[in-house]
Amino acid sequence: MSTLDHRYGEVTLTVLGPDRRPVADRLLTVAQQRHAFAFGNIGFDFVPLVGGPDPEVIDDVESFGGVIHRGPGLDVLAGLWTNLFNTATLPFYWGRYEPLPGKTDAVRLEKVARWFADQGVTVKGHPLLWHTVQPSWLLGMELDEVERRVRDRIREVVGRFAGLIDTWDAINEAVIMPVFANGENAITPLARDRGRIAMVRMAFEEARAANPSATLVLNDFDLSSAYECLIEGVLEAGIEVDAIGLQTHMHQGYRGEDYTQGVLDRFARFGLPLYMTETSLVSGHLMPKEIVDLNDYQISSWPSTPVGEARQAYEIVRHYRTLVEHPAVQGINYWGLTDEGAWLGAPIGLVRADGSRKPSYDALESLIKDEWWLSPTEMRTDADGKLTVRGFLGDYEISGAPFSISAGGPRHAEVTLQRSYLS
Amino acid sequence: MSTLDHRYGEVTLTVLGPDRRPVADRLLTVAQQRHAFAFGNIGFDFVPLVGGPDPEVIDDVESFGGVIHRGPGLDVLAGLWTNLFNTATLPFYWGRYEPLPGKTDAVRLEKVARWFADQGVTVKGHPLLWHTVQPSWLLGMELDEVERRVRDRIREVVGRFAGLIDTWDAINEAVIMPVFANGENAITPLARDRGRIAMVRMAFEEARAANPSATLVLNDFDLSSAYECLIEGVLEAGIEVDAIGLQTHMHQGYRGEDYTQGVLDRFARFGLPLYMTETSLVSGHLMPKEIVDLNDYQISSWPSTPVGEARQAYEIVRHYRTLVEHPAVQGINYWGLTDEGAWLGAPIGLVRADGSRKPSYDALESLIKDEWWLSPTEMRTDADGKLTVRGFLGDYEISGAPFSISAGGPRHAEVTLQRSYLS
Repeated sequence: MSTLDHRYGEVTLTVLGPDRRPVADRLLTVAQQRHAFAFGNIGFDFVPLVGGPDPEVIDDVESFGGVIHRGPGLDVLAGLWTNLFNTATLPFYWGRYEPLPGKTDAVRLEKVARWFADQGVTVKGHPLLWHTVQPSWLLGMELDEVERRVRDRIREVVGRFAGLIDTWDAINEAVIMPVFANGENAITPLARDRGRIAMVRMAFEEARAANPSATLVLNDFDLSSAYECLIEGVLEAGIEVDAIGLQTHMHQGYRGEDYTQGVLDRFARFGLPLYMTETSLVSGHLMPKEIVDLNDYQISSWPSTPVGEARQAYEIVRHYRTLVEHPAVQGINYWGLTDEGAWLGAPIGLVRADGSRKPSYDALESLIKDEWWLSPTEMRTDADGKLTVRGFLGDYEISGAPFSISAGGPRHAEVTLQRSYLS
Repeated sequence: MSTLDHRYGEVTLTVLGPDRRPVADRLLTVAQQRHAFAFGNIGFDFVPLVGGPDPEVIDDVESFGGVIHRGPGLDVLAGLWTNLFNTATLPFYWGRYEPLPGKTDAVRLEKVARWFADQGVTVKGHPLLWHTVQPSWLLGMELDEVERRVRDRIREVVGRFAGLIDTWDAINEAVIMPVFANGENAITPLARDRGRIAMVRMAFEEARAANPSATLVLNDFDLSSAYECLIEGVLEAGIEVDAIGLQTHMHQGYRGEDYTQGVLDRFARFGLPLYMTETSLVSGHLMPKEIVDLNDYQISSWPSTPVGEARQAYEIVRHYRTLVEHPAVQGINYWGLTDEGAWLGAPIGLVRADGSRKPSYDALESLIKDEWWLSPTEMRTDADGKLTVRGFLGDYEISGAPFSISAGGPRHAEVTLQRSYLS
């Protein structure tokens, strides 16, 4: 367990009764409530399920998963989702969010974000600025006008959701942005003219202004030296980046521990938290290696298979272990819960289209909610009412009273039990 | 010829006699003397030929071409070289330049640089900072000490050669610098710790301080987005780059017009001159595609073949045309004159080891000294002694009197003939 020491903490509790006197020599139940580590997933499914159907006007725009839904319904999916995850990524693709100028999908997204937040789930928005899924009404505008609209859109979205959504993928895939050639859009010409760093600055500047306490993430799928060079430039330019986002959609095969560790070490060098923003592993056949842009692989059916499901489960455990073992990683966002409506039609879900669990779901549950989790456990206070709890960093309860174990947090805490727990 | 318009200029001369009166209606000889465009080659061969043999102490250090010499001798090689080229790159690899602390090869290099300069050749130094061919005495030093030595070395070299060498590849291959794994050296750990942009700043800062009027080049073989991102970061960081150097060693095959134009367009975006710093094409078999670091391909014999020589000649013409047609390119440096002692033992020379011309030499000569050159031509002044000359940008003479055709230069000039040319 030594490789996970950085994920653990310890706190010595002084347990007091309602009368403020130590509760000595008594069996109490300690149970973890929540991970400090962001175990996340996209919440795209819940936009139509909770917020209501898509407005007709956005029907023809790419969705990246989770919008069509004929699956097992809200209750089942919500239960499966909240059982494992504490952080939801919601879609703010501009072309879908604002299909007509000023006509935004904000009300529906606010409903979904609130629904997650009410269950103790942290909500993250994705992405503020990208070259894909752009509103067609931007096409043909002058560059200065496009920039103005970009700035307005970022300020509007971040400002509106501040307090409810305080983490954003501020800019997506800036490395390829000025040279992207897989779909006409108004952002690529702007990026070509202004440069990558200027685009990053634009996104971070506006988002920061609209919500100064937001956590702003630079996110990319390009994990080569190009991204390192971009990050260096962005930091040299004085842009305040809160976290580095690393995408790892593995439709073409699991990339292995050595690869992943290498990537993490290279990007940890900047001293910023790493967010694994987009993680996926298929439970069916692999996409051919020669496909460069994953979006180009369009097939009519991509089934989940027993062999594929076994592989996916095995690989997801290996991958999550690698990530959680690395001290720089602060969160992992998986890309989808169910195969129904999944991105590219790929069987990357942790449950099948009918809502039944795949082995990957069970495997992940055994990590997140067992191996890395303190299930309800009886512990005894000493003669002074003291008790030491060691556990994965996060939120806990001792017989109904909350406390936390945090990395740099206090080593001692006082908790006061309610009378009902002492009967 | 319209694609080369940017390479041409025109000047109307008023030709005066020694008595300052117009030389009217007279046949005179106009001839180009030099190209403004930097047609360059390495001058590594001439270091031992002109400067004397290598000091024994550097025998075991990599040389990148041009040090062993059993060829046709100085006169033949010098004639072949100066017939085509006006800009020489000289080697300042640190491990060879300063094999023992303080024991530099400066005297020999100064002799060679002077020899080139005396023939009207511009001299460029390569490179001030790189992770390859490093002195072994740097190994084991503390990072701060390595940085101090780096700064000292750059200041010493650039300062010493100022006036004689005013163009430098200030830093070489910064993209791979912090992750270079093909040979232990003291620079990679420094780059990993300080970052790429800091390394670039270090090189440019010291070189600029030592020779404020120097032309300083950022040079790389990585022509991917990574280099674009690095350049963006470097410019954002306020580092004053005079030119972007692009290497194109094509031992694995000619990359074609489309590729080259694409690269030039991508890097021209920064508005800086492009120098094709390292250009080579083999006249034998191609290096296998799977080799990543060209230095890893070590074979005992790599012959120049008739078929290979035909291909090399055809490709060199296509390549030089592509480069000269692009307005951003201000110079092309070919990587070697003769196969004797060429880098990697590859037949990239324009002449064979025995000094005989390959078809590539003849083809390049027909471009540089014929198609793009104004050979001695008789032209007649009008009644006012005026004459208009259109030609490739560069230096000219009219019956012994010098004049220039420059891009943004004057459209009119006065030249005064010496009496001897009017007899």
